Amino acid sequence: MSAPSTPSAPAAPSAAPSPVSAASAAGPDAARGSAARTYALDRAHVFHSWSAQAEISPMVVTAAEGSHVVDGEGNRLLDFSSQLVNTNIGHQHPDVVAAIADQAHRLATIAPQYANDQRSEAARLIAERTPGALDRIFFTNGGADANEHAVRMARLTTGRPKVLTRYRSYHGGTDTAINLTGDPRRWANDGAAAGVVHFFGPYLYRSRFHATTEAEECERALEHLEQVVQLEGPQTIAAVLLEAIPGTAGIMVPPPGYLAGVRELCDRYGILLVVDEVMTGFGRTGAWFVSADEGVVPDLLTFAKGVNSGYVPLGGVAVGPRVDEHFAHRPYPGGLTYSGHPLACAAAVATLEVMERDDVNGHARRLGEQVIGPELRALAERHPTVGEVRGRGVFWAVELVTDKGSRTPVAPTGGSSSVMAGAVQQAKALGLLPFTNSNRIHVVPPCTVSEAEAREGLAVLDKVLDRVDELVAETA
Amino acid sequence: MSAPSTPSAPAAPSAAPSPVSAASAAGPDAARGSAARTYALDRAHVFHSWSAQAEISPMVVTAAEGSHVVDGEGNRLLDFSSQLVNTNIGHQHPDVVAAIADQAHRLATIAPQYANDQRSEAARLIAERTPGALDRIFFTNGGADANEHAVRMARLTTGRPKVLTRYRSYHGGTDTAINLTGDPRRWANDGAAAGVVHFFGPYLYRSRFHATTEAEECERALEHLEQVVQLEGPQTIAAVLLEAIPGTAGIMVPPPGYLAGVRELCDRYGILLVVDEVMTGFGRTGAWFVSADEGVVPDLLTFAKGVNSGYVPLGGVAVGPRVDEHFAHRPYPGGLTYSGHPLACAAAVATLEVMERDDVNGHARRLGEQVIGPELRALAERHPTVGEVRGRGVFWAVELVTDKGSRTPVAPTGGSSSVMAGAVQQAKALGLLPFTNSNRIHVVPPCTVSEAEAREGLAVLDKVLDRVDELVAETA
Repeated sequence: MSAPSTPSAPAAPSAAPSPVSAASAAGPDAARGSAARTYALDRAHVFHSWSAQAEISPMVVTAAEGSHVVDGEGNRLLDFSSQLVNTNIGHQHPDVVAAIADQAHRLATIAPQYANDQRSEAARLIAERTPGALDRIFFTNGGADANEHAVRMARLTTGRPKVLTRYRSYHGGTDTAINLTGDPRRWANDGAAAGVVHFFGPYLYRSRFHATTEAEECERALEHLEQVVQLEGPQTIAAVLLEAIPGTAGIMVPPPGYLAGVRELCDRYGILLVVDEVMTGFGRTGAWFVSADEGVVPDLLTFAKGVNSGYVPLGGVAVGPRVDEHFAHRPYPGGLTYSGHPLACAAAVATLEVMERDDVNGHARRLGEQVIGPELRALAERHPTVGEVRGRGVFWAVELVTDKGSRTPVAPTGGSSSVMAGAVQQAKALGLLPFTNSNRIHVVPPCTVSEAEAREGLAVLDKVLDRVDELVAETA
Repeated sequence: MSAPSTPSAPAAPSAAPSPVSAASAAGPDAARGSAARTYALDRAHVFHSWSAQAEISPMVVTAAEGSHVVDGEGNRLLDFSSQLVNTNIGHQHPDVVAAIADQAHRLATIAPQYANDQRSEAARLIAERTPGALDRIFFTNGGADANEHAVRMARLTTGRPKVLTRYRSYHGGTDTAINLTGDPRRWANDGAAAGVVHFFGPYLYRSRFHATTEAEECERALEHLEQVVQLEGPQTIAAVLLEAIPGTAGIMVPPPGYLAGVRELCDRYGILLVVDEVMTGFGRTGAWFVSADEGVVPDLLTFAKGVNSGYVPLGGVAVGPRVDEHFAHRPYPGGLTYSGHPLACAAAVATLEVMERDDVNGHARRLGEQVIGPELRALAERHPTVGEVRGRGVFWAVELVTDKGSRTPVAPTGGSSSVMAGAVQQAKALGLLPFTNSNRIHVVPPCTVSEAEAREGLAVLDKVLDRVDELVAETA
């Protein structure tokens, strides 16, 4: 495998079909007419996530390729969001597209109770990349149900009810279907939704522990977690579940030793450690998994998104020995119709082979170290509204504040503001598709973004931050 | 659209690739070697749903086409299960396979916040087929999260906490991910998993209401539901959620007027009606939806499986006016990365077009009326262990009992027995892939199964029932 010292995008085979050019083959008028129909039907018939249905004007996306998407007007936008931080290998990677088309012709779907070559192969490839002996894979449709099943496994393995998770985290949006169920599959899960207790994780920029250094933040965050464990009662706690690096909540890279400290604390109290690598896994930080990078082996590791870049819905749980042994001769009371879906697994097999072959992880790591990190730090110095930049690989947050002294966010947690709306508008006008949340812009392009594209996007971000500086100054 | 009076399978275009023959092209030894590897990797790395991991020997499936699957030994089995009752248009329908391959080349994935042609078109086609004004579609990955979101919508729209569901039902396996979440997306859902109350539905064969006729069972079941509503407090109940016909729990076709009675009762108390058509929808009973067939318009209708035969994971909620208006100017606090996944939606568009063009629903209905129903009733008369057969379209249950007088099930609810294990073994040995649950064999072939295939499978079932008769006689 090559390891160039300068980041460059993994080469895309030239056999790539080009949807971006194909979209305009019928002429811009036809494309716009079709986009108008798409928009009209969307407004008539699609109910959107996290939205007030009558107050949105969804951008039409007609095509995408590599690091770009094309909107209904034919504008080509640089995708600095990877959609919802899932298209790690970029849009329409020809090898993965070909694998999906091939598998569709071979065998699109088969029920979970059978064995299937793509399911077996995907499980092997994932198990080989997880840290330690996380050797058995339970497949789901996405990250939410991966966490669902991880928690169920932990609760049943330990016989303990509670799960500790972090404030400032996201683990998926489901909560009740098994409780609705009126057959024996419900019994083992009855009341399981109770007993989630939230704790504070390390976040030096807004330390809840009055710390001033990473080391101090780490030590105090671990001390806090141990306090919560002791006060909740260790014998009642099945698992500590946390994102390796909290994602949508703000990309708070944990201080060195934090994850290892949590692992040690879990061991001390017989608690299982579940690490959610749904967003961090498969190249996002320049590694297969952050936990492996940190020398930590969780009892359960959850994944989705990057495993096949979301080309086909897929998620899962990598299961370690303690849980695997518990369910060796005891039925695991959980499942889903599309567990180990052959089409989704074929996409994962192709994705992992491409990532390995083209050293996508190495590319993402070097981009972070040599381009994105240094450039963002320069932007932070230049712009008065940038409070902090932090990240790794192609996984960065830019935290926007009214001023560096007060660190006051330009939008509340979970909300928006005119400043953030202005930032998004400016980015799109300049050809950049951004990912924003609360008072943050996340710089999360595909792992395959080229150095030139990354620099182009960062130059646009510079102009977006000029606009943010103006807007903040106006409202001050 | 043709409406032949004798059921015959919708014609499959001759351009169909043939995975069944392709699988053996490399010779039986190569196929068996590859199946051995699939099996070995499965046993090493795949964690299976609803199973004790060390006590299963999953059958390898190497190929499938129409109503047949091929196992690792090269045996061709008639699929009377539709896998998990999802491949309504059979395996590897060439038009749907082609649509998936095409869409993979065009645009595999795009985030939910954008508008996309396949998502728009799928929403239109589904909305046009749902009863009444269920005109807006929220897409999910499968049935579990469809029910999750339907319940969330109902609770937030009504401001009431409880949901009433039936004993003997299945609505999916998730329960807690949003509670794990530590960001503001959790707030609106906090504690929502509480407050599920189960009631008894109509099931004349094992009536909880001491009824002797369908009309009596219907009347008493509605009276019982109203009692539960009154004793739980109508003002605390957001929704009654029920499968149009309970599926895995036993295909208990409700008596005429029951669903309409529940609708009327919900209206009387300001309660939303959510009908789960995950298994019943899209042709399974010979109609698009059972609720439409029964003249009932739910407030929310959930679907998955048949919408695209599970070729790509997809589910959703069809949203009626009351909920849609509630979230017109108020953000809906729920979502998922793969909501409205273009590849899954493209498969749905192709599936619905094929079903319409080939009158798959009419075929399934006629098969049920003219072949499966009459034949099963004849088997029930002939075999002392068949307690009852019931169903509609290609959705039938055969209930096995030790004797017709006592109606004692040959296996407990949610469990198995040597009799049921013997039935499954016999079916597979005779080339039939069955669907079984508790003391029942479900006859649930694809909606596209030909009359000849249906008769062939029913002839095998006759022999399986001979074996059941023997086994029961031996253990008596």
